Amino acid sequence: MRAAIFNEPNSITVGERRDPVVAEPTDAVVRVVLACVCGSDLWYYRGDSPFEPGPIGHEFIGVVDDVGADVRNVAKGDFVICPFAISDGTCPHCRHGITTACAHGGFFPGMNGDGGQGEAVRVPLADGTLVPVPGSGHSDEILRSLLTLSDVMGTGHHAAVCARVKPGDIVAVVGDGAVGLSAVLAAKRLGAERIIAMSRHRDRQELARTFGATDIVAERGEEAVEKVKEMTAGVGVDAALECVGTGQAMDTALAVARPGSTVGYVGVPHGVELPVETLFFSNVGVQGGPAPARTYIPELLDDVLEGRIEPGLVLDYETDLDGIADAYAAMDERRAIKSLIRVGAV
Amino acid sequence: MRAAIFNEPNSITVGERRDPVVAEPTDAVVRVVLACVCGSDLWYYRGDSPFEPGPIGHEFIGVVDDVGADVRNVAKGDFVICPFAISDGTCPHCRHGITTACAHGGFFPGMNGDGGQGEAVRVPLADGTLVPVPGSGHSDEILRSLLTLSDVMGTGHHAAVCARVKPGDIVAVVGDGAVGLSAVLAAKRLGAERIIAMSRHRDRQELARTFGATDIVAERGEEAVEKVKEMTAGVGVDAALECVGTGQAMDTALAVARPGSTVGYVGVPHGVELPVETLFFSNVGVQGGPAPARTYIPELLDDVLEGRIEPGLVLDYETDLDGIADAYAAMDERRAIKSLIRVGAV
Repeated sequence: MRAAIFNEPNSITVGERRDPVVAEPTDAVVRVVLACVCGSDLWYYRGDSPFEPGPIGHEFIGVVDDVGADVRNVAKGDFVICPFAISDGTCPHCRHGITTACAHGGFFPGMNGDGGQGEAVRVPLADGTLVPVPGSGHSDEILRSLLTLSDVMGTGHHAAVCARVKPGDIVAVVGDGAVGLSAVLAAKRLGAERIIAMSRHRDRQELARTFGATDIVAERGEEAVEKVKEMTAGVGVDAALECVGTGQAMDTALAVARPGSTVGYVGVPHGVELPVETLFFSNVGVQGGPAPARTYIPELLDDVLEGRIEPGLVLDYETDLDGIADAYAAMDERRAIKSLIRVGAV
Repeated sequence: MRAAIFNEPNSITVGERRDPVVAEPTDAVVRVVLACVCGSDLWYYRGDSPFEPGPIGHEFIGVVDDVGADVRNVAKGDFVICPFAISDGTCPHCRHGITTACAHGGFFPGMNGDGGQGEAVRVPLADGTLVPVPGSGHSDEILRSLLTLSDVMGTGHHAAVCARVKPGDIVAVVGDGAVGLSAVLAAKRLGAERIIAMSRHRDRQELARTFGATDIVAERGEEAVEKVKEMTAGVGVDAALECVGTGQAMDTALAVARPGSTVGYVGVPHGVELPVETLFFSNVGVQGGPAPARTYIPELLDDVLEGRIEPGLVLDYETDLDGIADAYAAMDERRAIKSLIRVGAV
């Protein structure tokens, strides 16, 4: 089969890989239909985080091609969403909803050997990991939105859940990447009344508004903090969602969060510091981490299928596997919010 | 009037101070009946934090002796609880329940000039700050418990609230000082099913059990973490309450908290670091700060008056104002969990 291969920073090509097969009785093999590129893939692409040369990618939906003898919840031919983390669904952490801490789970491609940006993927612990999509003949718009449940929409939702967004809240979202925009949508879905999106890019501002942002702050750093403080009569917001992972983004989120609120953070931290005295004396908490996307899929899936949310709108660039290099470059150069890869037929 | 005076580290004496009077129309003057020494006073006593020489103390209950023209909620003769922070009760932060961030508030003795360990105290913003106690003729046991609502019980409760303790939870409490013991009681009150108290002192272990601890861990540091992990089948606890404020206590709390849980922390941080990558990759949050004791008084007050909780048991040493030096020394030397000062008649 053909799959995207990370060679070294700034070099992603398509290579030949052995077709994945069921290796454990709990495995499934999924033929990929749609995949996409994650903001976290860019950390490797840019050389900001180390990555082993080989297959890459961890967001995909597709059709089950084969299952091991012990697999019960999915069958050959099922259309499935695969979250970015592998989890058994039965360990204590999974039962508490934190599937990204699964006692027997892991991540693509470290645990299974296949990346998500390829024609097929061996998925370990298929019963716990995969979620079958009910119905058939879904539109391309629906499929694009289902794809986002594998990571980016679940991650934006996790930011909102960690920050305890509740109906009537004033929420600030730091970051206008695909995760930040998904966080806007998640905050809206959870009932936030006012959503302040921090964005300097017109196209992203527009999508933020489509997703429910009521206010846009184009400033950054200190100026952005002042602007949000002004907009909230000096009080700050009820929930701040940090969706970047840089020190400046976290500092901004902490500075706009009102006393007693929580910063939900989902950007993998790069150069982030948590100043304990600032947090303590302002009674501002932080909570976040790798999103348990698997846990969130069922509720978000219903909303996608019934047309209440359309997170797939973050996918504003598309190509096929042969275009994988430009799919990365487009995001790296901010020509794209998020790149969709059309891999196979439904 | 007579009041405790902080001279320098290790030196607290009783001095003569001008009788407090109503200076602003929103002031009340409270004649102190019972006061106590806070664990945070010890940071100054030990020279670990700077403190301006002068009056000290911030936990007291007493009788209203005079009120300014604008005071509506309390009247001369009322028996009142005074929380350790002054707050107006009407600003946005107060309305959100975080009275320790009151836009017009402050702390004793910085804002008002009087400490709580003295015969009388000028209390600014009396309507927002003071809570009248219904009824009269309360027993000494009840009075001792009411005194703890000024800080220590509210602070233990804040740790449990910040850690989102809920019915059925397994909770670990780091710290067996008066705050840690109060946190045990607060966790029990919020429905925790299993409460692991970390304590090496037999008398404190006993009080922890009286307050609802189901398990005691006498180990510290790495060994304590291993013990708690063993007790929870390797999973960790649903909520960890950090009630000390040292780096070791926070490290222990973070290490025993299961993924997805929150460390509630209320010890003023001294040498605490929050390792962002550890927090992020374990999905463990932190939330805490100076407890909005004022917000919690009404609900805790009911429980005290109806005998459902007896937080006053943390006061295991008592003296009068003349004995103030030993009240501090007893806590410093760990002869006392918490020192009660009998100042005036009811």
